[in-house]
Amino acid sequence: VAAGAVGVAPIGVGVDQELISAVPSHNPTFVARNYTDAEVAYCSAQPSPSSSFAARWAGKEAVFKSLGVKSKGAGASLREIEILNDPETGAPTVTLHGAAKAQAEAKGVGKILISLSHSETVAIAFAQAAKSS
Amino acid sequence: VAAGAVGVAPIGVGVDQELISAVPSHNPTFVARNYTDAEVAYCSAQPSPSSSFAARWAGKEAVFKSLGVKSKGAGASLREIEILNDPETGAPTVTLHGAAKAQAEAKGVGKILISLSHSETVAIAFAQAAKSS
Amino acid sequence: VAAGAVGVAPIGVGVDQELISAVPSHNPTFVARNYTDAEVAYCSAQPSPSSSFAARWAGKEAVFKSLGVKSKGAGASLREIEILNDPETGAPTVTLHGAAKAQAEAKGVGKILISLSHSETVAIAFAQAAKSS
Repeated sequence: VAAGAVGVAPIGVGVDQELISAVPSHNPTFVARNYTDAEVAYCSAQPSPSSSFAARWAGKEAVFKSLGVKSKGAGASLREIEILNDPETGAPTVTLHGAAKAQAEAKGVGKILISLSHSETVAIAFAQAAKSS
Repeated sequence: VAAGAVGVAPIGVGVDQELISAVPSHNPTFVARNYTDAEVAYCSAQPSPSSSFAARWAGKEAVFKSLGVKSKGAGASLREIEILNDPETGAPTVTLHGAAKAQAEAKGVGKILISLSHSETVAIAFAQAAKSS
Repeated sequence: VAAGAVGVAPIGVGVDQELISAVPSHNPTFVARNYTDAEVAYCSAQPSPSSSFAARWAGKEAVFKSLGVKSKGAGASLREIEILNDPETGAPTVTLHGAAKAQAEAKGVGKILISLSHSETVAIAFAQAAKSS
């Protein structure tokens, strides 16, 4: 009778890589369209803002892929996928807003796990969308 | 009373990267040995077929790793790990055939999640093998 | 009574990449501080020891991220995150020791899945920390 019911189960994964030089984080229109104010504040305060913006960009793409939803054109804007760092541990965490949130809820996604990494030139990200029980 | 019974649990992960230029997708023998007809049709129709073949190659290797089975020599051919795109969402999906399917079933793998990414030069893939409850 | 009880549920993910040339595996002090004797024996016996040391380094960082714990300074040493290969399948497996083990247990982590990959120049790793039911 399901004593050991488990909290979450994976329902989608996403991986993405971006050349840091290819993410136009010096373009205010690009930044305003794709990042929340809190993300901009965080990235701008990092030792290498362009690396942080690129890692988050890869993260947003990875989250988008993990949701397994249709085209971005018709769906969520990447600004609605917000990646901030836990003030306690420094680990990145995902919060969805607007249409992205609605699409995730429609698919039963209760939690999204994320990890980011960047070298001097490349940012990569991995996301896992999990179902809450 | 199993109210919140959960669908799947992770039992293995796999990551792989390939230089796009190192995957000999222009070689018909290599392609015929490692890709299904449907995969060939899909990759050939993409804007950059060599990138698509390489991303699938990384995906097949990642799936193989996620299964945690013995050597490829003794086991599954990569042609038996088929990665096609959901016509609805465009998201890649995994179907196993032959020995790969038998090995996965023997390990209790009920589902494999996959994500692919490529830059101009490098393809990366992540796979997760999950158990069905 | 828990017929379909599921083994594990994801509670954290970690991804990391390292330039192989940037991991000082020729430095005995670095190696002794960060790798166990069994890891050193394994990596030294591989065709490209520097690639193996770098892949394990990426793996240790990915495991660390998957645990979502505080700073390394205050916490686990990477030597306490041991990555060895299953003698049967060759697949990498994670064993935690000391403070790393205690931190994982405190977070309810029962299992960590890992996968490693390296090209000529770059090592990448993915880790997933899962809860046991």
